[in-house]
Parts: sequence; structure tokens; C-alpha cells
Amino acid sequence: MSSYEQIKIKAYEGNMQLPSLGLVLFTFGNVSVADHDRKVFAIKPSGVAYSDLSPGKMVIVDFNGEVVDGDLRPSSDTKTHAVLYKHCRSIGAIVHTHSTYATAWAQALRDIPLYGTTHADHVAHDIPCAPPMDDQMIEGDYEYETGFQILNCLKERGFTYEDTEMMIVGSHAPFTWGTTVEKAVYNAAVLEEIARIAYLTEQLNPSADKLKDKLITKHFDRKHGKNAYYGQ
Amino acid sequence: MSSYEQIKIKAYEGNMQLPSLGLVLFTFGNVSVADHDRKVFAIKPSGVAYSDLSPGKMVIVDFNGEVVDGDLRPSSDTKTHAVLYKHCRSIGAIVHTHSTYATAWAQALRDIPLYGTTHADHVAHDIPCAPPMDDQMIEGDYEYETGFQILNCLKERGFTYEDTEMMIVGSHAPFTWGTTVEKAVYNAAVLEEIARIAYLTEQLNPSADKLKDKLITKHFDRKHGKNAYYGQ
Amino acid sequence: MSSYEQIKIKAYEGNMQLPSLGLVLFTFGNVSVADHDRKVFAIKPSGVAYSDLSPGKMVIVDFNGEVVDGDLRPSSDTKTHAVLYKHCRSIGAIVHTHSTYATAWAQALRDIPLYGTTHADHVAHDIPCAPPMDDQMIEGDYEYETGFQILNCLKERGFTYEDTEMMIVGSHAPFTWGTTVEKAVYNAAVLEEIARIAYLTEQLNPSADKLKDKLITKHFDRKHGKNAYYGQ
Amino acid sequence: MSSYEQIKIKAYEGNMQLPSLGLVLFTFGNVSVADHDRKVFAIKPSGVAYSDLSPGKMVIVDFNGEVVDGDLRPSSDTKTHAVLYKHCRSIGAIVHTHSTYATAWAQALRDIPLYGTTHADHVAHDIPCAPPMDDQMIEGDYEYETGFQILNCLKERGFTYEDTEMMIVGSHAPFTWGTTVEKAVYNAAVLEEIARIAYLTEQLNPSADKLKDKLITKHFDRKHGKNAYYGQ
Repeated sequence: MSSYEQIKIKAYEGNMQLPSLGLVLFTFGNVSVADHDRKVFAIKPSGVAYSDLSPGKMVIVDFNGEVVDGDLRPSSDTKTHAVLYKHCRSIGAIVHTHSTYATAWAQALRDIPLYGTTHADHVAHDIPCAPPMDDQMIEGDYEYETGFQILNCLKERGFTYEDTEMMIVGSHAPFTWGTTVEKAVYNAAVLEEIARIAYLTEQLNPSADKLKDKLITKHFDRKHGKNAYYGQ
Repeated sequence: MSSYEQIKIKAYEGNMQLPSLGLVLFTFGNVSVADHDRKVFAIKPSGVAYSDLSPGKMVIVDFNGEVVDGDLRPSSDTKTHAVLYKHCRSIGAIVHTHSTYATAWAQALRDIPLYGTTHADHVAHDIPCAPPMDDQMIEGDYEYETGFQILNCLKERGFTYEDTEMMIVGSHAPFTWGTTVEKAVYNAAVLEEIARIAYLTEQLNPSADKLKDKLITKHFDRKHGKNAYYGQ
Repeated sequence: MSSYEQIKIKAYEGNMQLPSLGLVLFTFGNVSVADHDRKVFAIKPSGVAYSDLSPGKMVIVDFNGEVVDGDLRPSSDTKTHAVLYKHCRSIGAIVHTHSTYATAWAQALRDIPLYGTTHADHVAHDIPCAPPMDDQMIEGDYEYETGFQILNCLKERGFTYEDTEMMIVGSHAPFTWGTTVEKAVYNAAVLEEIARIAYLTEQLNPSADKLKDKLITKHFDRKHGKNAYYGQ
Repeated sequence: MSSYEQIKIKAYEGNMQLPSLGLVLFTFGNVSVADHDRKVFAIKPSGVAYSDLSPGKMVIVDFNGEVVDGDLRPSSDTKTHAVLYKHCRSIGAIVHTHSTYATAWAQALRDIPLYGTTHADHVAHDIPCAPPMDDQMIEGDYEYETGFQILNCLKERGFTYEDTEMMIVGSHAPFTWGTTVEKAVYNAAVLEEIARIAYLTEQLNPSADKLKDKLITKHFDRKHGKNAYYGQ
């Protein structure tokens, strides 16, 4: 049995959650799970239907994007995952989907404004939309550059990947991550719902104000702060 | 077996209806059921997935918000429930969700206008949006103050909690209640549907008129008036 | 066994389709089926959950709205059904729902414009929105007058109930009918879908033109004309 | 057993996917599968519910639209399919639906703008909306002319049916095709999702820019270009 069994199983389980959560149509998404000690991750094979997946079909790739184990070609977005793992030690899993509302914000080239406590429970600022990359980078190593597009956007905004586990890539679609695959998948579903409610908020009130600062702090901190009292 | 068995079972059953009705994503909601004689209520534990709930996991809390029975930490919104029970003798159950459309109205900081008979069948006026509280209250006992935010908003509008069993809290999300848990959960689903139809009404006709007074009275009274003839 | 068994079974089956088709929340709707020879119809009891229905719980009512058989109180909308059956010999079944998009058009007090062939396959003109009745009628025999509101609207527009089997009642919600219960329920679902696509059409193109006359005639006639060639 | 068994089974399976994918209400759609060697195709019978279909009920029609095998009347759109097969040797299957969002764009008489990579993964330009045909053609052989409406629109835009496997017919609804029935059905579902995300994009940003050229080329080519690296 493959020595990468554990991350293959976890990547498989994470991938299988995407259709149940209504986040993907056909093969429009992928989940990976990393083993930072061995500097590899397990990722969905490219273009394989979710109903045909199994743990054994996951592909093992190193942090430079090279396949090290597996019979199938890995997701076309593999290098984006590789870049994020290489530069972010505590990212344990990454999720990429084309979920409807989050993708619409990406296509509109807009950050998702922080309009309410549902958003502030998860991220303490607007969800950033990384700008589409310039032509030279697109013609270069596109998926590799997409990873840097994400990292650079975080840096420019002054955010860390620990506090901001979700982002949309302009003209493209969302990426989320987390220390565990459960958290990364959770973030993908939460992002879609935040994107949907923000959309409806603007339709109801085109000049809606963003959430006041004290409520942002209160809600983010009660879940994520030093004295958090949400959960068990 | 716990002496609070009955309200634990009812609270459990009420909580389990929320995902079936499409009103919650993950753990974004909670239901509680009160025993006014003993001045306690059973409420969902904080951050526990609905699929992991059982009657025995419900937490018993008194009307000052202190846990009196149960191994888990209660919902982070517990004090809001406590305040409502303490001040409203005939509220038997409370439901809090972040249901999509009702939450969008809350984020838009708008009352839900009474546009049709579906709304008037349940509430005889716009569904109030309580204003976000001031900074001092947020920094104080936030969830406790949320209870008063609801009670004060009802009072300022001249409504009673018996006639108005649903409200949205500005920037946050909806709260509904009722004499029984069945009614409180019913109200949460009805509010979401009223919020959705009102949203669509405005998109179709931005200058839509509110429902005429005679129709409000007719529809509210045929279900809730002295001579009601709806139901068995 | 009740001598009205056949229409009770058909009314029961028709009612049970409404939740499966996503046309009702809780008890927001009702289906009736008529026996024109005996001048009676079977209708859903008022306020009873669909999951608690059975053929035996259907209520038999005559065309003046008087109960002639059954232990339960009939739907609060019963008199509207009675008026339509009394005046329209070939209406075999009636469906009333508060389906989301059709109700939004009703609340917007707007006819549903004939924008495409999906609509023209079923109705050869805009779907009429009957105006809300005047205050005197509301205070009078409200549900009875709703029946006349529908009949008068058809008459004023120059439509017949045979060619126009669906309508929305302003501020309220849709009514559909047909020679059979299958057709009346089919019409309720089709109306909701037509209402939804028309809504989206206007959002995409606020000055969208209505369907050209030749296409209206072509599509309506290929399904309903003398030389219809749709179906078996 | 019918000598057309294979295409009947494939057409049956393709038709049955439409309701599972949420692309049809009742009988609003049809799938056909061609055998180019014998110059025939199998198509859904007209107006038969999907739940009543079986492979044996598929109708075999030649490329002039004449029935050559089967007991039922074929889909009313049969001649449209016949024209496309006759003129497009490598179209193996055709799907017609009235899916909600794609139909709304058709009713709005608008091409679906290429706003993001989800779209560019499938089609490298706006999805064309063929103009409604002129009155003479409608009164002539309508469904036959619809086939030419599609072919002429492709030609006028300078597209080939191999590169553009989806289109909307103005005032009507979408048609998609592919070399296999799996691909044609896949395209019908993808078109609906592209139509939905494009709709939301415009609501979020009415002056949204189209996708930049380099990203169009990159995404289309990585799936469909000479050096494609998507899939297995």
C-alpha cells in the first residue's frame, strides 16, 4: 500500500465533499492535502469525475509541482497548490472551486465587502480579489504564477494566510485553505454563502454600509481571538 | 436520566429541523426551548455539527444565562435567549439562524416591507430590523445586550412579542420565537420565504406599493383574529 | 366508503404533488377537484400539513361553498374555488399556491410579460394580474369575491378560462386550473417557471421586447391549435 | 430487437440525465443521438414524461426528418436536429433544453459575454444568441428553419460547430451538441452554469470587462489546444 495513504484518503474525502456541498459542477474543483514533513501533497487527478474517484487515484506531488507517485495526471491547478504549500508552512489543505456566487464576484473583479456578522465570524476584512495577472505571466508558467498572485495579494493588503483563509482570484474563481482539510472545505462553503448574502445585500441596498468596526472585532474575536468562547 | 429531559428532546428536535428546512449552513443557528416554571431553557451546544447532536447534548441554562446542567458549552448566543425568556413569559421557544434572504435584509439595515398577503398572514406590519447597537454596548455584554436590542425595538415600534414573532437584528441575522418550538421553527422558515419574495418584488417593481390596509387586516385576522377561520 | 371517493383521491394526489414540485412551504396552497354532475368538489382541509393528509381528510363542498361531507374545515380559500367551478363548466381542478416567483409578480402588481416561447407554449398573451379588490369587497365575502376578481379580470381582458388556465391575483398569489388535476398542477409549476425566467429576462435586459406575434401564434398553435403536432 | 438499439439506448440515457441535472421541467427538452453511417438519429418522443421513457420508446428519424422506426411521434423539434446532423458530420448528439438562465439570456436577445475562465475553459468567445427568424420563415417550416438559424449564426460569426458546441436561439432557448451524447449533455449543463454566473457578474458590476485575451487563449488551449494538459 502506498506510503502516502493517509493524505490520499484525506484528499479523497475532501474532494468528495465538494459535490455534496453544491460547490462544484462536474469536475470544476479540486482539493489537496499536504504532508509538510515530506514536502508532498495529495491532489485530485485532472478531469476525473467525482463519482469515479478513489483514494488510490489521488496523485502525490512535491512542493515544486513534480509528480512523485500516482498513475494519473494531477489537477491542472497543481502548481498553484505547490506554491502555496512551499511558502506557507501551516497550510495543511487547499480547496479550489468555481462555486457560483464567489466566481461571480471574481468575474466582477471586486472584493467581497464585509457587510455583516456572518462574514466577520470568519474574516475580519473584505475578502480580497487578486487582480488578474499581466500578459507575460499568463504566457509563462500560469498556474505557478497564480500561486504568487495569491501570496502577493495577501502581502499587499497586509494580511497573513493564517488570518485570511479565503480569497478570490480575479476573472477566475475562489481558493480557500486551512490547517486541516475539514477547515479548508468548510471555508469554501462559507465563502460561497458570504458571497451570496453580500450579493443580495447590495441588491437590497446599493449604498449599504460596511459592518462597523466594533462588530467586526467582536465577532471575529469571539470565534478566533485570545478569549474566544465559540465552540467546545 | 436528566430531569430536563422533555425540553432537551424538544430543543433537539427543533434544532434538527433547521438543516432540513435549508435554514442553516454548518452550525450557523440555534434553537432553545424554555420551561418557564423552572425558569430554565435547553439550548444547542456551541459549534457542534447538527449531525453530531443528540438530546443529551443540549445544555440547560437559567434565565440569567448561567449553565445549570450539561457537559458542553452552550451556544454563544445563549444570553440573548435568556433575556427574551426572562422578559417574555409566553415565549416557549426561540430560533436564531443566518438564513440567506433574511440575513441580507439585516445586512442592508432595512425593515422587510409588507408587500403581500403571504406576509400579512403572519405579521400585520413590516418586519422590524433592530438597529445595530452602539459601540459601548458591543464592548460590554454583547449577547445580553442583543436581547434588549430586540425588546427595545419592539417597544419603540409599539409591537408586542405576542403579535410579532419574528425580527431581524441589523448587520446580523434573524431571530424568531413562539409559544412552542414547532411555531418558532415555522416562523424562521416563513420569515426566510417572506424575505425572499419581498426581495423579488422590489427587483420587479422598485416602487411597489405596500399592501393596502384592508387586506392586511383581513389576512392577519382570518388566521389570528377573534373570528379566525384558518386551520382546524 | 364515501361516495365521493374518486374526487377525494384525485384531490389528495394533486395536493401531494405541490411539495414535491417545490411550489409550497408548509400549508401555503391547496388543490381541489370537481364533480360537475353532482356539483361538488373535494378540497384540502385548512391548515393541515401535507404529510398528514390522506384521501379521507379531503372535504367535499358544493358550488355555493357549503360543506356536504367531511370532518374537517375546508381550505380558507374554498369559496374562491366554488365560484370558479360554478361559472366554468369545464374547469375540472383548481390549484392555489404562493409559489415564490409568481407571488413576487403578484406583489409587484404586474402582468407577466410574454417574453419567449416557453411562455407562448402555454399562454398566448401576458399572464394577467387581477387588481386587488376594493375595500368594500374585502370587508364583504372576501374569498367569494376573489373568485369574481379572477372571472372579471379574464372578461375585461377578453380571455376565456379555456385558453388562459393561469392567473395571478394582485397582492396575493397565483391560481391555475385545468380540465384535469394533472393539468392544473402542471400549470402551477409551469407558471412558476415562466415567472422566474421572465424575472431574469428583465434583469438582463430591462427593455426586452415581447415575443413577436408570429412566434406566439406558432408556439401556442403547435401545442394547442387545430393542427397541433406536440405530444402523442 | 431493433437494429437501432445502440443509439436508442444512448439517446434514452442522455434524456434521463436532463432531469437529474436540473435542466428540464416536465417535458421541456430533448436529446438525440446520431448514427452518421446510416444517416439516422434516435430522439425522444414528443410530450412523454421522462419517468415514462424507455430505450424502446425512442424514435428513429432520418436526416430529412422522416420517421423510419418507432411507434411514437418524435419531438416537435426533430427537424432542427435533422438539419444539424445533415450538415455537420461530426455532431454525434444534440441537446435542447429550456434551462432557466440560458433561456433568460435567449429571451433578452443577448449573447452571453465571456466574463471569466469558467466560460473560456469551454468556449473562446461570447456564446452567440441567434436572432429570431423572420415572419416568413416562422410560417414556413419552422423547426427546419431553426436548424439553419443556428448554422447561419455560426457562419456569420466565423465560428465552427466543432469549436462552438453551444448556442442560444433568440426568444427561444439553448441548443448544445458534441461528438458524443455525454459531451452534448455536459455542454447543456455547463452552458446553464456559465449563463448563471454571467448574470450574477453583471448584477455585481454592470460595467464588468470581458476576460482579457491572453486568459481566453490560455484557458481554452489548456483544455482544447494542441498542447492541452487538462484531463487524462
